[in-house]
Amino acid sequence: MRIGTIASHSALNIISGAKTEGFETVLLSTPNRTEFYRSMDSNGEIIEVDSFADILSIQLDDVVWIPHGSFVAYIGAQRILESTLPLFGNKELLKWEEDRQLKAKLLHESGLETPLEFDDVNDIDRPVIVKTYGAAGGEGYFIAKDKDEVLKNIPSDKQYSIQEYVVGTKVFVTYFNSLAKDRLEVFGADIRYETDADANLRFDDRPSFVVIGNLPMVLRESTLHRYYEIGKNFIEGFRRLTGQELPGPFCIETIIDRDQRICAFEFSGRIVAGTNIWIPSSPYSFLQFGEEMWMGKRIAREIGELMQEDRLDEAIL
Amino acid sequence: MRIGTIASHSALNIISGAKTEGFETVLLSTPNRTEFYRSMDSNGEIIEVDSFADILSIQLDDVVWIPHGSFVAYIGAQRILESTLPLFGNKELLKWEEDRQLKAKLLHESGLETPLEFDDVNDIDRPVIVKTYGAAGGEGYFIAKDKDEVLKNIPSDKQYSIQEYVVGTKVFVTYFNSLAKDRLEVFGADIRYETDADANLRFDDRPSFVVIGNLPMVLRESTLHRYYEIGKNFIEGFRRLTGQELPGPFCIETIIDRDQRICAFEFSGRIVAGTNIWIPSSPYSFLQFGEEMWMGKRIAREIGELMQEDRLDEAIL
Amino acid sequence: MRIGTIASHSALNIISGAKTEGFETVLLSTPNRTEFYRSMDSNGEIIEVDSFADILSIQLDDVVWIPHGSFVAYIGAQRILESTLPLFGNKELLKWEEDRQLKAKLLHESGLETPLEFDDVNDIDRPVIVKTYGAAGGEGYFIAKDKDEVLKNIPSDKQYSIQEYVVGTKVFVTYFNSLAKDRLEVFGADIRYETDADANLRFDDRPSFVVIGNLPMVLRESTLHRYYEIGKNFIEGFRRLTGQELPGPFCIETIIDRDQRICAFEFSGRIVAGTNIWIPSSPYSFLQFGEEMWMGKRIAREIGELMQEDRLDEAIL
Repeated sequence: MRIGTIASHSALNIISGAKTEGFETVLLSTPNRTEFYRSMDSNGEIIEVDSFADILSIQLDDVVWIPHGSFVAYIGAQRILESTLPLFGNKELLKWEEDRQLKAKLLHESGLETPLEFDDVNDIDRPVIVKTYGAAGGEGYFIAKDKDEVLKNIPSDKQYSIQEYVVGTKVFVTYFNSLAKDRLEVFGADIRYETDADANLRFDDRPSFVVIGNLPMVLRESTLHRYYEIGKNFIEGFRRLTGQELPGPFCIETIIDRDQRICAFEFSGRIVAGTNIWIPSSPYSFLQFGEEMWMGKRIAREIGELMQEDRLDEAIL
Repeated sequence: MRIGTIASHSALNIISGAKTEGFETVLLSTPNRTEFYRSMDSNGEIIEVDSFADILSIQLDDVVWIPHGSFVAYIGAQRILESTLPLFGNKELLKWEEDRQLKAKLLHESGLETPLEFDDVNDIDRPVIVKTYGAAGGEGYFIAKDKDEVLKNIPSDKQYSIQEYVVGTKVFVTYFNSLAKDRLEVFGADIRYETDADANLRFDDRPSFVVIGNLPMVLRESTLHRYYEIGKNFIEGFRRLTGQELPGPFCIETIIDRDQRICAFEFSGRIVAGTNIWIPSSPYSFLQFGEEMWMGKRIAREIGELMQEDRLDEAIL
Repeated sequence: MRIGTIASHSALNIISGAKTEGFETVLLSTPNRTEFYRSMDSNGEIIEVDSFADILSIQLDDVVWIPHGSFVAYIGAQRILESTLPLFGNKELLKWEEDRQLKAKLLHESGLETPLEFDDVNDIDRPVIVKTYGAAGGEGYFIAKDKDEVLKNIPSDKQYSIQEYVVGTKVFVTYFNSLAKDRLEVFGADIRYETDADANLRFDDRPSFVVIGNLPMVLRESTLHRYYEIGKNFIEGFRRLTGQELPGPFCIETIIDRDQRICAFEFSGRIVAGTNIWIPSSPYSFLQFGEEMWMGKRIAREIGELMQEDRLDEAIL
């Protein structure tokens, strides 16, 4: 069995981890990227494709594919859900990520707080983010500090939603749910580095939040303990709602406000790019394993252990 | 001899370091935390207690306890000072941390600059932080950019102190003072990640400073050299004032302003949570040891070396 | 052959890397710094000099010197260019760093975007930074959010230049161009930590940008790929303009704005202090080497490999 992925997002992380655990690897690359990936990965197999979506038609019976954030971007959630591609993890979670109401349902079922929604402009009593329907990638939304600012800027010709803007610090926590070891591992915490939100000088209160990288952080240990509970509740919430397991890596994206309220606004049921900062180890993965352990290696180790127990199919859902 | 601590703050750091150096460990945990700590530390002894303060009545003759920030929070400085618990480090420094005047005295004796104090509102010529007496955890203070803003917000019915608000970047530097090697080591530098002070968008100039984690940093090497001097002066200042040594880890908490003035506002005579970001190594500890060296391991190594020389009592003050 | 440098900037990085690769080392130190460097480097040769510029008169035939940022600061670009000191890397690039027009020429030849220059105040349509001629170290410049603010603050008696102030996030990317392996390596990315620009509270829009340290980051992998191209273009641009190679470490200093435009404002043709955060490894160097690899070690490894092929002179230009 080989381990494969597409040449973007966290591919270097995944491929190097697989090799370290003794797997052969396959990287799908587009022509403009091959030289770079070859410079970082001199001896793995690289298959050039015109488009990453070609993964759907490639027939490689000996490959487990590791999905990452670019899978949805390049292939599309719907096509992934309908495909028979052997993907590590649970595809079902994609549905819950995509649909705003399902997402809120899962977060609430997991006991997580989420930003308030305002149905009526007159109820606004705090900073909010106003999103027009269909807004994507930071276009088509604005942040307003109070009701007056919303009224001044609201589009009259479009539908929109109004959500509390939680003032606080961003914390993205990654977990690994191991079926082989029957335990939840808190893998690491990171901060998205966003432009121009993280600029040290802007001239207005209207930042964009375009992700350009990730920064490492550790949590206060009493807060880390809370995140461990959150991760467990998330897995259990998903199990109650779907009857299914959530194997492998996932991430819960939060903001912590001044009252130490942990507010979740997003989750990802797969490896996230924030784990790239933790190569070769995060403090937490090092503590748990007593050796270098990055997410790509962690995934490969799980695949190896499940294969030994002939249980790999439990993690390909 | 075993190494023990209570399940919070930097316990994972301490326990894993002790094990790596060949010690058996004891972790005091409350019931709600045991599952999490067991998931991170699968084979050390965990003793469940109703309250961390129970450490005072537990009789374990073979344990050196490593104090951390939660000791004072859960047990209280006074009770620690009065106890006969064998704590690694110098308890005496706690007194100097707790008392505002003693603290200033020690910092000045060590040649460190501290924020100005304003006795008279009319002298205010820069941003200040106004604290009402008894303010704790960020409640009961406010920041004002000038005298007018102070006058507008000052409570008429309470006593308060007015301190310069130093505009600059936070730098927390951790040291290890080794009796066994007779040298001061600069261990690492970090930044507290605080909410909502580190939010990328707020709507006023009144942030709270609730610590939720730590970020890694390295110092400009010419500045690192200055911090080395500061650390040495701190140890010598303490020695002049008390006649005592300061063994083990300590931290000096500073802000550097645009004139590169290093302004100290706090210190801690024990392991700080900022060292958690430097597992398994900080650049400085790696340079010095040529191997992975985190603070928990550093402490255990010191204990081991002092035991070999039959000098452990010198580090339990 | 030994490896040497002067006791500042990234000296610990360089010296420890050289030792790990089996070289003996020489550190030039001034008397006030010796104790600190001795505490970090207990067994290398340290030569005390009154001034770092004494390096020009020291005759040590068996030393390759590794230049870093403090070389120019303490010795001066002109004297370095005129000296016959065997410096690792290409001195010629210093000329292009020093001269504003040459710098712009090289960046453009490399296909990099740079901040706009405004010759006429009336053309200003965005935030700008206004620098009086001869301004240095953050003195003698100011940032203005629009034309009106420029007009209000412009000095009538001085010459000045007006440059676009790019609102975005800082990204400093370090490369290693290996002649021995005939490849370009993206070594790591970091962020300068600047006071008071990175303060979490200021009371005006006029920050200073005094570097006090560095923070680690990883780039979004699709952005990392763009930086790889940038690095390659930079080497090729320099080759086209000068007919020369650019061996060893270099850094390109950029800001990324909300349109993901990568704007370069500076470069350095030598080891930069940002690499100090990546001891003992950056995620990228670890991925590429499968072992701990910091910049000082990388340089020493290159020197060793070139010596084995009798090609060291190709990297001392």
